[in-house]
Amino acid sequence: MAKLPKDSHRVEDVAYAEYLFEKFYVIGSISTGGVTRLGYSDAETEMHKMFKSIGEKEGFRYEEDEVGNSFICNSDSDSYYLIGSHLDSVVDGGRYDGVAGIIAGLIVLKWVKDNKLDIPIKVGAFRCEESSNFGKCTVGSGLVTNALNKHDVAETVSKDGRTMEEIFKENGYSLYPERISGVKQYLELHIEQGKILEEYGERLGIATTIAGPKRFLLHLIGEAEHSGATPMDMRHDALCGAAELISEIESIGRDEAIWKSVATVGTVELKPNALNVIPGSVTLGVDIRGINQDSLNRMENRIKDSGKKIAKKRGLKFYRDKISEMSPVVLSRNMQETLSHIAKDMKISHRIMISGAGHDAMSFAEICDTALIFIPCDKGISHNKNEFATIESICDGAILIYEYLHEVSK
Amino acid sequence: MAKLPKDSHRVEDVAYAEYLFEKFYVIGSISTGGVTRLGYSDAETEMHKMFKSIGEKEGFRYEEDEVGNSFICNSDSDSYYLIGSHLDSVVDGGRYDGVAGIIAGLIVLKWVKDNKLDIPIKVGAFRCEESSNFGKCTVGSGLVTNALNKHDVAETVSKDGRTMEEIFKENGYSLYPERISGVKQYLELHIEQGKILEEYGERLGIATTIAGPKRFLLHLIGEAEHSGATPMDMRHDALCGAAELISEIESIGRDEAIWKSVATVGTVELKPNALNVIPGSVTLGVDIRGINQDSLNRMENRIKDSGKKIAKKRGLKFYRDKISEMSPVVLSRNMQETLSHIAKDMKISHRIMISGAGHDAMSFAEICDTALIFIPCDKGISHNKNEFATIESICDGAILIYEYLHEVSK
Repeated sequence: MAKLPKDSHRVEDVAYAEYLFEKFYVIGSISTGGVTRLGYSDAETEMHKMFKSIGEKEGFRYEEDEVGNSFICNSDSDSYYLIGSHLDSVVDGGRYDGVAGIIAGLIVLKWVKDNKLDIPIKVGAFRCEESSNFGKCTVGSGLVTNALNKHDVAETVSKDGRTMEEIFKENGYSLYPERISGVKQYLELHIEQGKILEEYGERLGIATTIAGPKRFLLHLIGEAEHSGATPMDMRHDALCGAAELISEIESIGRDEAIWKSVATVGTVELKPNALNVIPGSVTLGVDIRGINQDSLNRMENRIKDSGKKIAKKRGLKFYRDKISEMSPVVLSRNMQETLSHIAKDMKISHRIMISGAGHDAMSFAEICDTALIFIPCDKGISHNKNEFATIESICDGAILIYEYLHEVSK
Repeated sequence: MAKLPKDSHRVEDVAYAEYLFEKFYVIGSISTGGVTRLGYSDAETEMHKMFKSIGEKEGFRYEEDEVGNSFICNSDSDSYYLIGSHLDSVVDGGRYDGVAGIIAGLIVLKWVKDNKLDIPIKVGAFRCEESSNFGKCTVGSGLVTNALNKHDVAETVSKDGRTMEEIFKENGYSLYPERISGVKQYLELHIEQGKILEEYGERLGIATTIAGPKRFLLHLIGEAEHSGATPMDMRHDALCGAAELISEIESIGRDEAIWKSVATVGTVELKPNALNVIPGSVTLGVDIRGINQDSLNRMENRIKDSGKKIAKKRGLKFYRDKISEMSPVVLSRNMQETLSHIAKDMKISHRIMISGAGHDAMSFAEICDTALIFIPCDKGISHNKNEFATIESICDGAILIYEYLHEVSK
């Protein structure tokens, strides 16, 4: 083991992490207090430029790949460890989602340099991890691992109305990139975006599986009628049907919680959405996630059946669109065990857990051994200006990655 | 009785009604096929100019009052029958709501002239009946009957951001108008905006009471957390609470249906309304209406209690804002009986019913005998480009009003 503090962090490490955090801080800041750094927007590009400038200042080599992902490298070896995350954010998001993992990678790179270790590492910042701009997540990592292809993304349209294809053309990027090569193992640190670590009082999480999200739009169509002039027994109120369906989806999620599945209605679109009109149509956006494929399928079927049953009973029309579907991703068991063993040695309390949220690690799990490490975030809040994680937590994760790389590259 | 057809309408009457309908048709037309003629907007003013030009072409006198309401008058008698309705619309509304009543009034006026009867009549077009522009309904009729005062409306803001006070100043209107005088009786024809007449196959409705609407915003506040990373048992999902509350409100409405009450959740506002975030807050817009004050109060209390109970059970915060409250308005029993008796004589099938929707008639019921007559509208659809009533129905209503005036002014 390298001589690094285990229970508390060195002042200079905390200072370096803070320095890195400050470098990114102002980019994409908005008046509400949060940041908006949408994937493939100018704000995200500015983040990548800052990343480049930080790396070059430390004397590292910079690379950009065919889709705009950025890499800071301590060697030009054909075979390297990749520590990755992202620099984009949701609309009005927080400053830790993605950035925490990049900071951790840069700290590890510096420690490896300072300790003159010969471990080939690239820190990779992947473009457009959030679905907020194009409705597609993990675009940069997906394209270079070939988990995504041109057809998945070319026609998607950004919030300002441009297709991915147009943006790629403008920037000289390719929708048919060569598959990334030479990655020995992929490691990612990310804020948990949940409150499990906080509730259990643990310093780090090591993920076993990343839940596979399935997303649907559920449409209920009734009749938009005058709220005053239509007696209760003559109504076909789409919202009352939707309310029943939302309750049912919650109950399905609770039934499947034993399998660590979750079911969420996150969006509601109502027409005409006027105080004096009975809702004529409602569209619910549903996100179900889990690590057990049977549980996911069961939830999907039960939601479909509930929608049909409720619609029939109420004289509504019901149909659904599947937006996306990903299978659960199992991460490297070996890496988890080694990471857990090192964390134990270092007396850093940690928890073996699932990842409910999706991450760039999903893209890499298909092509190499992959590990995902969580740090707690305050009250589990994420995708929000109130998102907060401590610099010490980032250092906890960085030390674990550093010690891990030190161990496996011996 | 004057010699007018009872079962079918004269070709020239239908043609005149169609001519009037066409005159207004194009004003405020929008690309979707409907019309937008917001209260105190240019489009509404154009409607009033057209109204003036139609009246003057027939040789009638035109008056505008201190708040911009328009009148076509067949005499300058101090005491007159007032046939009123409105010329504004909701956003993307239909062409019959309000206009049907104005057309009926103009037809009656023409018949009275053609038949050389000496019945003093004004047809009144009242400004801003719909709440769509300022969130306040029956503004023009409310101000001149003093049912509303300056404090109710001065600070309200139009969709394009101007206060009622500014708009009144610009146009030389007064927020302290003199109370309208000389109205012997007020009569209004309006499309039903419900489907009771259609379901029962009746040609006209005669209203006994106008339901008093109470409107609330109900707020449920939970925690906006990551939909993937937050287990079902750690959630404070505002939407799941709202769904339960919507179902409860429907059930309260159904319980009170024996009192002809209704309860509707017409609007839902969700934050952040994102597929990957558990809804952190939901605001429901609730409209309850009825003709029985006890029933209205019971509904209000039960909704409040349900909100509190659901919030407590789920660890959410709950509060409510009352937006508006009006008492049920009882219309003239005498006028109803006479109208019903005349309709019977004319063999026009009709139904004695309540008005669930609010109308300018509410403002007048306080100051004079008031009657409200409904004509069927297709499938009950209103506030929508698909709103449709037949010209023959408008003629049915016009004949009833004409015969009524003929009868009572003998």
